[in-house]
Amino acid sequence: MSQRVCISLDAMGGDHGPTTVVPGAAIARERHPEMTFLMFGDEAILAPLVAAEPRLKGAVEIRHTALAIAMDEKPSQAVRTGRGKSSMWKAIQAVKDGEADAAVSAGNTGALMAMSKICLKTLAGIERPAIACLWPTVRGESVVLDVGATIGTDAEHLVEMALMGSAMARIVFDLDRPTVGLLNVGTEEMKGNEAVKEAARRLREADLPNLTYHGFVEGNDLGKGTVDVVVTEGFTGNIALKTAEGTAKQIGAYLRAAMSRTLSAKIGYFFARQAFKALRDKMNPSRANGGVFLGLEGIVIKSHGSEDAHGFAAAVDLAHDMARHDLMRTIRDMLELTPAGASA
Amino acid sequence: MSQRVCISLDAMGGDHGPTTVVPGAAIARERHPEMTFLMFGDEAILAPLVAAEPRLKGAVEIRHTALAIAMDEKPSQAVRTGRGKSSMWKAIQAVKDGEADAAVSAGNTGALMAMSKICLKTLAGIERPAIACLWPTVRGESVVLDVGATIGTDAEHLVEMALMGSAMARIVFDLDRPTVGLLNVGTEEMKGNEAVKEAARRLREADLPNLTYHGFVEGNDLGKGTVDVVVTEGFTGNIALKTAEGTAKQIGAYLRAAMSRTLSAKIGYFFARQAFKALRDKMNPSRANGGVFLGLEGIVIKSHGSEDAHGFAAAVDLAHDMARHDLMRTIRDMLELTPAGASA
Repeated sequence: MSQRVCISLDAMGGDHGPTTVVPGAAIARERHPEMTFLMFGDEAILAPLVAAEPRLKGAVEIRHTALAIAMDEKPSQAVRTGRGKSSMWKAIQAVKDGEADAAVSAGNTGALMAMSKICLKTLAGIERPAIACLWPTVRGESVVLDVGATIGTDAEHLVEMALMGSAMARIVFDLDRPTVGLLNVGTEEMKGNEAVKEAARRLREADLPNLTYHGFVEGNDLGKGTVDVVVTEGFTGNIALKTAEGTAKQIGAYLRAAMSRTLSAKIGYFFARQAFKALRDKMNPSRANGGVFLGLEGIVIKSHGSEDAHGFAAAVDLAHDMARHDLMRTIRDMLELTPAGASA
Repeated sequence: MSQRVCISLDAMGGDHGPTTVVPGAAIARERHPEMTFLMFGDEAILAPLVAAEPRLKGAVEIRHTALAIAMDEKPSQAVRTGRGKSSMWKAIQAVKDGEADAAVSAGNTGALMAMSKICLKTLAGIERPAIACLWPTVRGESVVLDVGATIGTDAEHLVEMALMGSAMARIVFDLDRPTVGLLNVGTEEMKGNEAVKEAARRLREADLPNLTYHGFVEGNDLGKGTVDVVVTEGFTGNIALKTAEGTAKQIGAYLRAAMSRTLSAKIGYFFARQAFKALRDKMNPSRANGGVFLGLEGIVIKSHGSEDAHGFAAAVDLAHDMARHDLMRTIRDMLELTPAGASA
């Protein structure tokens, strides 16, 4: 891969579509001036938005695509109508064809995953893809997966996710041997369902050269940053992620109410307003926006549908980093280095 | 049941044992002066602690029990050694024998559940018990279950939990028809695993007179208080609960760091210190301490093992309220009123 990273964008995806995608791309490009974009969507809408962004000058090729996938479309329906001709499909297709190094979409998650599986296919040896996110912790960030690609799991899938999540952690955190934990209801060996117990046994016995298996971790270890990679089944992972986001919002609401209740609190707020701003930035989920689809023959990043341009830019940054440091080769190396016993 | 509520206490349970249980009982009795206690544990330790508490005067009967269950004992092992003779077992036995209206223990959760099932048995028609907690929300509190009694579920178990959780919500929130949601990865009908989809169908079709089935809720609905009762499988529920607790701690750490970084922030903190105290109280998990075991022939409450006396007192308050308002009859009424179709 050349140093120059090209990202394909589903410019019509998300709650706000091109009005978020185009400025988001501009913000990300300011940070990575070597980056170029293939933008798929309605040219009549995109062209003036791109022209208005000096930061995108000479970096964007617009490919007109009339069809956009609706946010509430059923994945199966989206594939039937959008295959080969929607902005979402074409952004993925650009990765398959080698025109782009990674695709980013803020569209319908189910449709994006269904199209990615059909268009890119899963990696050899991987049965089901996973969605990984960067989870903010008191120590920095951790990779957490699966946050909702598939429902239900078995030991093999959990081990595959441990390997793929470690590959991502090696790139994002620049680590040789990330620490990996399996999310469970307790840290004792006897706890949990059969899948996590069996996956724990395999990871312990495999004693892999490129990750350190830490053991079981619990829900409260996520925020502590106890391990670099937390592996769990998609139903539980999705609920944990949304529960954490909800709790952060809830505490934000308590804090705002507390700071406006008395005159003394209002004065305090005035003096500490910079500190509150720093806290708000730290708690802002858009800083860590972007779900990485792992287990496919190519890099696809999902941005939250409701994010603003800064949130979309964070997802583009993530796509850039994954492509720039060759996530695909790192994952393949992880899977090859692994003795068959670990995942079979 | 008489107006006078008697609570049996496993006085040896928890990380701090009697030094938390005895003052915790005293704090709770100050709020409910008609309450009496049966305390099971080492009389030589308990007698002086009780004598030192004027708020417990005339309200405590100590029953000497030499054996205490260790916090890390395996449930099966705890049952073998502690059956019939440990402070934990005897506290439960007092409920079975009608000497006490509810039992409270801060001991080993697995052992407490195993002993409760053996000693009290499950209610007719209920296959597996659940642990329900009160979850703080921006609107007040919600009942959330199961937070870790059993791993894995099916539609019938989810429907049973909807009924039992509603019975508890009727008492705690004084509602005729609590609203009930099933925790899922999305709110659309097609989302989730087979168990939640089937449970949703049954609850919708049963159209029960004493609860309003709201539909699916997501992780972020927990903190919003979207429904009065949130039902989920124990593995996911336990991880969601600990994730929320961890996130609250994480934000507390961010807040403390932000408020001590600059002089201006420190001045702000000084003026707003009462507001911060109110916030801390609001975020304090011990306010909502106490897991209610639902589905047994008697009331058993689990207090967090690491709670202080105020946390233990909250669990005793909960036991008092459940006994005082006859949780057992409310649950039986819910189960009887329910057409067989809903849970079969």
